[in-house]
Amino acid sequence: MLKILAQRKFPVGKVRVFASERSVGKQVAFNGDSLRLERIDDASFKDVQIAMFAAGADISLMYGPIAAESGALVIDKSSAWRMKANVPLVVPEVNPNDIRDNEGIIASPNCTTIPLTMVLEPLRQKVGVERVIVSTYQAASGAGRALSDELDDQTEAIVNKKKPEVNATSHQLAYNVIPGGWKPQQYGYNEEEMKLVNETRKILHDLDLKIAATCVRVPVQIGHSESVIIETKEAIEPEDVRALLERARGVVVEDDPVNRIYPTPLHVAGRDEVYVGRIRKDMSSDRGIALWIVSDNLRKGAALNAVQIAEQAIEMGVIPK
Amino acid sequence: MLKILAQRKFPVGKVRVFASERSVGKQVAFNGDSLRLERIDDASFKDVQIAMFAAGADISLMYGPIAAESGALVIDKSSAWRMKANVPLVVPEVNPNDIRDNEGIIASPNCTTIPLTMVLEPLRQKVGVERVIVSTYQAASGAGRALSDELDDQTEAIVNKKKPEVNATSHQLAYNVIPGGWKPQQYGYNEEEMKLVNETRKILHDLDLKIAATCVRVPVQIGHSESVIIETKEAIEPEDVRALLERARGVVVEDDPVNRIYPTPLHVAGRDEVYVGRIRKDMSSDRGIALWIVSDNLRKGAALNAVQIAEQAIEMGVIPK
Repeated sequence: MLKILAQRKFPVGKVRVFASERSVGKQVAFNGDSLRLERIDDASFKDVQIAMFAAGADISLMYGPIAAESGALVIDKSSAWRMKANVPLVVPEVNPNDIRDNEGIIASPNCTTIPLTMVLEPLRQKVGVERVIVSTYQAASGAGRALSDELDDQTEAIVNKKKPEVNATSHQLAYNVIPGGWKPQQYGYNEEEMKLVNETRKILHDLDLKIAATCVRVPVQIGHSESVIIETKEAIEPEDVRALLERARGVVVEDDPVNRIYPTPLHVAGRDEVYVGRIRKDMSSDRGIALWIVSDNLRKGAALNAVQIAEQAIEMGVIPK
Repeated sequence: MLKILAQRKFPVGKVRVFASERSVGKQVAFNGDSLRLERIDDASFKDVQIAMFAAGADISLMYGPIAAESGALVIDKSSAWRMKANVPLVVPEVNPNDIRDNEGIIASPNCTTIPLTMVLEPLRQKVGVERVIVSTYQAASGAGRALSDELDDQTEAIVNKKKPEVNATSHQLAYNVIPGGWKPQQYGYNEEEMKLVNETRKILHDLDLKIAATCVRVPVQIGHSESVIIETKEAIEPEDVRALLERARGVVVEDDPVNRIYPTPLHVAGRDEVYVGRIRKDMSSDRGIALWIVSDNLRKGAALNAVQIAEQAIEMGVIPK
């Protein structure tokens, strides 16, 4: 997040960084400078205009309201506040105006939800969206550094003909795919799948949207992919979807399978845009479109979206310049 | 295929192995013995009862009819004959009776089609199948040894901080997923996706079945996975689907996500059965079921199914004992 703030020349006056007891006193880099990590406490947010939370849901639940009370606009990357009624859940390219309805806290969505809504919203505006079916191919880094490191360790073990160790999730991830590992929820779905469902409905302001998800972890370091079927309310041709998405802000269409052009996570990692390819008619319905989405889960799927919410809030005058 | 014939104690009299010019004279192992590869020619099939083809489609097209003319029952693993009207396309657990309609050639389906039909058929019989949506997670070995070796080479390069070489398919596969690499066909679909669609329709005797597929290659050595939505004609509860599939021949249900039990390719590799997990209601439709299928693409997805066709043909008296 700090790297993205610097890269985008976000108009900062002073940046302060807070952490838990364990990390206090350590230095983190910001824009050529070095910032000292401070202990977070109830007085931390005095005179803070924007408080960006990139900690776990527990920390956001505890300190989010304190920061908001102190007058800061909280932008929270965790899942803590996303589904609360008085908290806008925002993808700036999709529902920027929801920012105005904040009561001090704005939430940034899940890493698979953000790219999906960026593809769905232009379609929703043009022809309406009736139903969405998603299967994901999610990178290790989405689960944090432990799984990311474990994937590297397991891969090295395989190359060295050693037995890979499994600690960070339910199964070995290297040379494997795992249809789970997230916290189980009702009806056989898990937390990740329900986030995708509920957050998409909230962002699109369509609480009855028919949507089902299967979330799968793949041995990729960065970049979540999604295989998506979208049934629209009115029929639309694939070439019109392509044209629509080519004009959509923050979306890049890479779709020429005859010349073996389609987005893959390895090539999208490090990029800001949401990439779309394999746009074609869903052969199993009258008004369906099949497509393939890839985005960098650490950038647009997380830190970048949070920074863009802050930028948008400034532009809209929600935060004074 | 030779390994599976031996493992299953297939009732062989004499086994002869044929290959192209390049390999003639080499030895291959069979059941503790060593077989010498012979040159294939028009006279090769004299006195042969069963001719199993595990070569490319070109070879099957050329020599399949010659073998059948000579009186052999041809069981062909290639795509050459699968969609021909007078050629049964058989999964022994699904449509064994089609074997009787052969005119000398029986085809074994594609590696993603076989497990899918084994899950669809019990549902079709019980409640009817209206529509199927599949996203695959396919192993490198499905593309043959070149991609399999390349995945290992790329993985080793990554561990040794070298640049992975890309030759076998369109993009780097290690630490990546590729939504393509198969021969492009009409309407934005590729050959692999259309095989899954057309072969499934033929095997289930439902030429109007609504079915759409997205085929994706993942960095896994053995074991194809499929994320599937099945809309049934009559409603059925997930627990009834589970009970139905637990009774289905050749299917194993591994479905207890709360205890982190679901099939993964790494654990299904080397096994004969088709594994199913994540069985739950499709949240986006009234009569939909979502589930996850994994099977060994080299065994049930290929050689094992071909051997089982031969076993079934013997059992049915189509081939004399």
